[in-house]
Amino acid sequence: MNYEELLKVARDQARKGFEEGGVPVGAAMFDSHGNLLGEGRNRRVQEGDPSIHGETDAFRKAGRQKTYRDKILVTTLAPCWYCSGLIRQFNIGTVVVGESINFEGHLDWLREAGVNVIELRDPECIDMMKSFIDTRPDIWNEDIGECDHT
Amino acid sequence: MNYEELLKVARDQARKGFEEGGVPVGAAMFDSHGNLLGEGRNRRVQEGDPSIHGETDAFRKAGRQKTYRDKILVTTLAPCWYCSGLIRQFNIGTVVVGESINFEGHLDWLREAGVNVIELRDPECIDMMKSFIDTRPDIWNEDIGECDHT
Repeated sequence: MNYEELLKVARDQARKGFEEGGVPVGAAMFDSHGNLLGEGRNRRVQEGDPSIHGETDAFRKAGRQKTYRDKILVTTLAPCWYCSGLIRQFNIGTVVVGESINFEGHLDWLREAGVNVIELRDPECIDMMKSFIDTRPDIWNEDIGECDHT
Repeated sequence: MNYEELLKVARDQARKGFEEGGVPVGAAMFDSHGNLLGEGRNRRVQEGDPSIHGETDAFRKAGRQKTYRDKILVTTLAPCWYCSGLIRQFNIGTVVVGESINFEGHLDWLREAGVNVIELRDPECIDMMKSFIDTRPDIWNEDIGECDHT
Protein backbone atom coordinates (compact mmCIF):
# COMPACT_ATOMS: atom_id res chain seq x y z
CA MET A 1 0.00 0.00 0.00
CA ASN A 2 1.32 3.43 -0.94
CA TYR A 3 0.47 5.36 2.22
CA GLU A 4 1.91 8.61 0.83
CA GLU A 5 -0.72 8.45 -1.93
CA LEU A 6 -3.49 7.90 0.61
CA LEU A 7 -2.20 10.80 2.68
CA LYS A 8 -2.72 13.16 -0.26
CA VAL A 9 -6.50 12.78 0.09
CA ALA A 10 -6.40 13.72 3.76
CA ARG A 11 -3.94 16.56 3.08
CA ASP A 12 -6.19 18.02 0.40
CA GLN A 13 -9.00 18.08 2.96
CA ALA A 14 -6.72 19.78 5.50
CA ARG A 15 -5.69 22.33 2.87
CA LYS A 16 -9.33 23.07 2.12
CA GLY A 17 -9.97 23.58 5.84
CA PHE A 18 -6.95 25.87 6.08
CA GLU A 19 -8.26 28.01 3.21
CA GLU A 20 -11.66 28.20 4.91
CA GLY A 21 -10.01 29.54 8.07
CA GLY A 22 -10.63 26.31 9.94
CA VAL A 23 -8.44 23.94 11.92
CA PRO A 24 -6.41 22.29 9.14
CA VAL A 25 -6.79 18.63 10.00
CA GLY A 26 -8.03 16.31 7.27
CA ALA A 27 -8.69 12.60 7.23
CA ALA A 28 -9.85 9.82 4.95
CA MET A 29 -10.92 6.21 5.37
CA PHE A 30 -9.99 3.50 2.89
CA ASP A 31 -10.72 -0.17 2.53
CA SER A 32 -7.91 -2.73 2.48
CA HIS A 33 -7.45 -2.27 -1.26
CA GLY A 34 -6.98 1.48 -0.96
CA ASN A 35 -10.46 2.41 -2.18
CA LEU A 36 -11.73 5.64 -0.67
CA LEU A 37 -14.75 5.18 1.62
CA GLY A 38 -15.01 8.66 3.10
CA GLU A 39 -13.04 11.86 3.57
CA GLY A 40 -13.51 14.85 5.83
CA ARG A 41 -11.98 17.68 7.78
CA ASN A 42 -12.24 19.54 11.05
CA ARG A 43 -15.13 22.00 10.82
CA ARG A 44 -15.26 23.54 14.29
CA VAL A 45 -14.95 27.02 12.80
CA GLN A 46 -16.85 26.54 9.55
CA GLU A 47 -19.96 25.03 11.15
CA GLY A 48 -19.53 26.09 14.77
CA ASP A 49 -19.50 22.38 15.55
CA PRO A 50 -16.87 21.15 18.04
CA SER A 51 -17.75 17.50 17.38
CA ILE A 52 -16.42 17.47 13.82
CA HIS A 53 -12.77 16.51 13.89
CA GLY A 54 -11.08 15.32 10.71
CA GLU A 55 -11.14 11.69 11.81
CA THR A 56 -14.75 11.69 13.05
CA ASP A 57 -15.85 13.35 9.82
CA ALA A 58 -14.13 10.76 7.61
CA PHE A 59 -15.56 7.99 9.81
CA ARG A 60 -19.03 9.48 9.45
CA LYS A 61 -18.74 9.90 5.70
CA ALA A 62 -17.72 6.26 5.30
CA GLY A 63 -21.13 5.26 6.71
CA ARG A 64 -21.93 2.04 8.54
CA GLN A 65 -19.34 -0.69 8.07
CA LYS A 66 -19.55 -4.30 9.20
CA THR A 67 -15.98 -4.19 10.48
CA TYR A 68 -13.16 -1.69 10.71
CA ARG A 69 -10.36 -4.17 11.34
CA ASP A 70 -9.41 -4.15 7.66
CA LYS A 71 -9.88 -0.40 7.22
CA ILE A 72 -7.22 2.29 6.98
CA LEU A 73 -7.83 5.67 8.59
CA VAL A 74 -5.44 8.34 7.34
CA THR A 75 -5.14 11.62 9.22
CA THR A 76 -2.83 14.59 8.73
CA LEU A 77 -2.20 14.97 12.49
CA ALA A 78 -1.81 12.53 15.38
CA PRO A 79 -5.30 11.88 16.78
CA CYS A 80 -6.44 13.49 20.04
CA TRP A 81 -8.11 11.45 22.81
CA TYR A 82 -11.53 11.90 21.19
CA CYS A 83 -10.36 10.45 17.88
CA SER A 84 -8.08 7.88 19.52
CA GLY A 85 -11.12 6.67 21.44
CA LEU A 86 -13.03 6.38 18.17
CA ILE A 87 -10.24 4.29 16.65
CA ARG A 88 -10.03 1.98 19.65
CA GLN A 89 -13.78 1.56 20.11
CA PHE A 90 -14.38 0.53 16.52
CA ASN A 91 -11.19 -1.51 16.22
CA ILE A 92 -9.88 0.37 13.21
CA GLY A 93 -6.99 -1.79 12.02
CA THR A 94 -4.54 0.71 10.56
CA VAL A 95 -3.99 4.39 11.24
CA VAL A 96 -1.68 6.46 9.04
CA VAL A 97 -0.48 9.68 10.70
CA GLY A 98 0.76 12.57 8.56
CA GLU A 99 2.68 14.14 11.42
CA SER A 100 2.97 14.11 15.22
CA ILE A 101 5.33 17.06 15.69
CA ASN A 102 2.75 19.76 16.35
CA PHE A 103 0.59 17.43 18.44
CA GLU A 104 1.95 14.10 19.59
CA GLY A 105 -1.40 12.48 20.35
CA HIS A 106 -1.51 9.07 21.99
CA LEU A 107 0.07 6.78 19.45
CA ASP A 108 1.54 4.38 22.01
CA TRP A 109 -1.89 3.94 23.58
CA LEU A 110 -3.22 2.98 20.16
CA ARG A 111 -0.31 0.61 19.52
CA GLU A 112 -0.88 -1.06 22.89
CA ALA A 113 -4.49 -1.64 21.83
CA GLY A 114 -3.26 -3.47 18.73
CA VAL A 115 -3.63 -0.70 16.16
CA ASN A 116 -1.10 -0.69 13.33
CA VAL A 117 0.16 2.92 13.48
CA ILE A 118 2.20 4.26 10.58
CA GLU A 119 3.92 7.64 10.95
CA LEU A 120 4.88 9.55 7.82
CA ARG A 121 6.36 12.85 9.15
CA ASP A 122 5.09 14.73 6.10
CA PRO A 123 6.71 18.20 5.78
CA GLU A 124 3.63 19.76 4.17
CA CYS A 125 1.37 18.58 7.01
CA ILE A 126 3.88 19.86 9.57
CA ASP A 127 4.17 23.30 7.95
CA MET A 128 0.43 23.77 7.46
CA MET A 129 -0.38 22.87 11.06
CA LYS A 130 2.44 24.98 12.50
CA SER A 131 1.29 27.94 10.46
CA PHE A 132 -2.24 27.59 11.82
CA ILE A 133 -1.19 27.19 15.47
CA ASP A 134 1.12 30.22 15.21
CA THR A 135 -1.63 32.35 13.68
CA ARG A 136 -4.69 31.18 15.63
CA PRO A 137 -3.54 29.65 18.95
CA ASP A 138 -6.94 30.53 20.46
CA ILE A 139 -8.87 28.31 18.06
CA TRP A 140 -6.28 25.55 18.27
CA ASN A 141 -6.40 25.51 22.07
CA GLU A 142 -10.18 25.47 21.97
CA ASP A 143 -10.06 22.49 19.64
CA ILE A 144 -7.90 20.46 22.00
CA GLY A 145 -9.87 21.49 25.08
CA GLU A 146 -7.19 23.70 26.54
CA CYS A 147 -8.75 27.10 26.12
CA ASP A 148 -8.98 27.65 29.86
CA HIS A 149 -5.34 26.83 30.47
CA THR A 150 -2.92 29.67 31.22
CA MET B 1 -27.35 19.34 42.20
CA ASN B 2 -30.22 16.89 41.70
CA TYR B 3 -28.60 14.44 39.29
CA GLU B 4 -31.71 12.27 39.08
CA GLU B 5 -33.56 15.27 37.65
CA LEU B 6 -30.82 15.84 35.05
CA LEU B 7 -30.90 12.17 34.14
CA LYS B 8 -34.56 12.47 33.15
CA VAL B 9 -33.60 14.62 30.17
CA ALA B 10 -31.10 12.04 28.91
CA ARG B 11 -33.54 9.19 29.61
CA ASP B 12 -36.28 10.89 27.61
CA GLN B 13 -33.86 11.08 24.69
CA ALA B 14 -32.99 7.40 25.09
CA ARG B 15 -36.69 6.55 25.20
CA LYS B 16 -37.26 8.48 21.98
CA GLY B 17 -34.40 6.57 20.36
CA PHE B 18 -35.87 3.28 21.58
CA GLU B 19 -39.25 4.12 20.05
CA GLU B 20 -37.53 5.00 16.77
CA GLY B 21 -35.89 1.56 16.71
CA GLY B 22 -32.48 3.00 17.44
CA VAL B 23 -29.82 2.30 20.06
CA PRO B 24 -31.45 3.70 23.22
CA VAL B 25 -28.65 5.83 24.61
CA GLY B 26 -29.46 9.44 25.42
CA ALA B 27 -27.33 12.23 26.83
CA ALA B 28 -27.52 15.86 27.84
CA MET B 29 -25.04 18.57 28.75
CA PHE B 30 -25.70 21.10 31.50
CA ASP B 31 -23.85 24.08 32.91
CA SER B 32 -22.82 24.20 36.56
CA HIS B 33 -26.22 25.62 37.53
CA GLY B 34 -28.10 22.76 35.91
CA ASN B 35 -29.20 24.73 32.84
CA LEU B 36 -29.59 22.53 29.77
CA LEU B 37 -27.05 23.32 27.00
CA GLY B 38 -27.73 20.44 24.63
CA GLU B 39 -29.38 17.03 24.47
CA GLY B 40 -29.13 14.20 22.01
CA ARG B 41 -29.30 10.49 21.35
CA ASN B 42 -27.61 7.73 19.42
CA ARG B 43 -28.80 7.86 15.81
CA ARG B 44 -26.80 5.11 14.12
CA VAL B 45 -29.99 3.47 12.88
CA GLN B 46 -32.15 6.54 12.31
CA GLU B 47 -29.60 8.40 10.17
CA GLY B 48 -27.27 5.59 9.17
CA ASP B 49 -24.57 7.57 10.94
CA PRO B 50 -22.18 5.60 13.18
CA SER B 51 -20.58 8.81 14.52
CA ILE B 52 -23.67 9.94 16.43
CA HIS B 53 -23.54 8.48 19.91
CA GLY B 54 -25.70 9.99 22.65
CA GLU B 55 -22.78 11.79 24.25
CA THR B 56 -21.29 13.15 21.00
CA ASP B 57 -24.75 14.37 19.96
CA ALA B 58 -25.34 16.25 23.23
CA PHE B 59 -21.82 17.69 23.01
CA ARG B 60 -22.50 18.83 19.46
CA LYS B 61 -25.86 20.37 20.32
CA ALA B 62 -24.27 22.36 23.15
CA GLY B 63 -22.15 24.17 20.57
CA ARG B 64 -18.73 25.72 21.16
CA GLN B 65 -17.93 26.32 24.83
CA LYS B 66 -14.96 28.17 26.28
CA THR B 67 -14.42 25.46 28.86
CA TYR B 68 -15.98 22.15 29.83
CA ARG B 69 -14.44 21.88 33.29
CA ASP B 70 -17.61 23.26 34.89
CA LYS B 71 -19.98 21.31 32.64
CA ILE B 72 -22.01 18.22 33.48
CA LEU B 73 -22.48 15.52 30.85
CA VAL B 74 -25.30 13.12 31.70
CA THR B 75 -25.60 9.86 29.80
CA THR B 76 -27.93 6.91 30.25
CA LEU B 77 -25.15 4.35 29.72
CA ALA B 78 -21.47 4.21 30.67
CA PRO B 79 -19.52 5.83 27.82
CA CYS B 80 -17.60 3.72 25.30
CA TRP B 81 -13.97 4.54 24.36
CA TYR B 82 -15.12 6.98 21.68
CA CYS B 83 -17.19 9.01 24.16
CA SER B 84 -14.70 8.54 26.99
CA GLY B 85 -12.05 10.02 24.71
CA LEU B 86 -14.34 12.97 24.02
CA ILE B 87 -14.80 13.55 27.76
CA ARG B 88 -11.07 13.36 28.44
CA GLN B 89 -10.00 15.49 25.49
CA PHE B 90 -12.30 18.35 26.34
CA ASN B 91 -11.80 18.06 30.10
CA ILE B 92 -15.49 17.69 30.88
CA GLY B 93 -15.62 18.10 34.65
CA THR B 94 -18.52 15.90 35.70
CA VAL B 95 -20.08 12.84 34.07
CA VAL B 96 -23.31 11.35 35.38
CA VAL B 97 -23.89 7.74 34.31
CA GLY B 98 -27.40 6.30 34.30
CA GLU B 99 -26.17 2.72 34.42
CA SER B 100 -23.07 0.60 33.82
CA ILE B 101 -24.62 -2.85 34.10
CA ASN B 102 -25.27 -3.51 30.42
CA PHE B 103 -21.98 -1.89 29.38
CA GLU B 104 -19.35 -1.10 31.97
CA GLY B 105 -17.40 1.40 29.91
CA HIS B 106 -14.16 2.83 31.22
CA LEU B 107 -15.18 4.75 34.30
CA ASP B 108 -11.91 4.16 36.17
CA TRP B 109 -9.95 5.53 33.20
CA LEU B 110 -12.06 8.68 33.41
CA ARG B 111 -11.64 8.94 37.18
CA GLU B 112 -7.86 8.58 36.82
CA ALA B 113 -7.96 11.50 34.37
CA GLY B 114 -9.63 13.62 37.05
CA VAL B 115 -13.23 13.36 35.89
CA ASN B 116 -15.89 13.43 38.62
CA VAL B 117 -17.92 10.32 37.73
CA ILE B 118 -21.32 9.83 39.36
CA GLU B 119 -23.12 6.49 38.94
CA LEU B 120 -26.87 6.34 39.44
CA ARG B 121 -27.79 2.71 38.65
CA ASP B 122 -31.18 3.78 37.31
CA PRO B 123 -33.58 0.81 36.90
CA GLU B 124 -35.38 2.35 33.90
CA CYS B 125 -32.10 2.89 32.01
CA ILE B 126 -31.01 -0.67 32.84
CA ASP B 127 -34.30 -2.21 31.66
CA MET B 128 -34.49 -0.19 28.43
CA MET B 129 -30.92 -1.03 27.42
CA LYS B 130 -31.29 -4.71 28.31
CA SER B 131 -34.46 -4.92 26.28
CA PHE B 132 -32.69 -3.45 23.23
CA ILE B 133 -29.60 -5.67 23.51
CA ASP B 134 -31.80 -8.77 23.89
CA THR B 135 -33.89 -7.83 20.86
CA ARG B 136 -31.25 -6.41 18.50
CA PRO B 137 -27.84 -7.78 19.49
CA ASP B 138 -26.66 -7.25 15.90
CA ILE B 139 -27.14 -3.48 16.02
CA TRP B 140 -25.77 -3.23 19.54
CA ASN B 141 -22.62 -5.13 18.60
CA GLU B 142 -22.18 -2.97 15.52
CA ASP B 143 -22.45 0.12 17.70
CA ILE B 144 -19.66 -0.99 20.02
CA GLY B 145 -17.44 -2.16 17.17
CA GLU B 146 -17.83 -5.85 17.87
CA CYS B 147 -19.86 -6.96 14.91
CA ASP B 148 -17.06 -9.16 13.59
CA HIS B 149 -16.62 -11.00 16.85
CA THR B 150 -17.97 -14.51 17.22
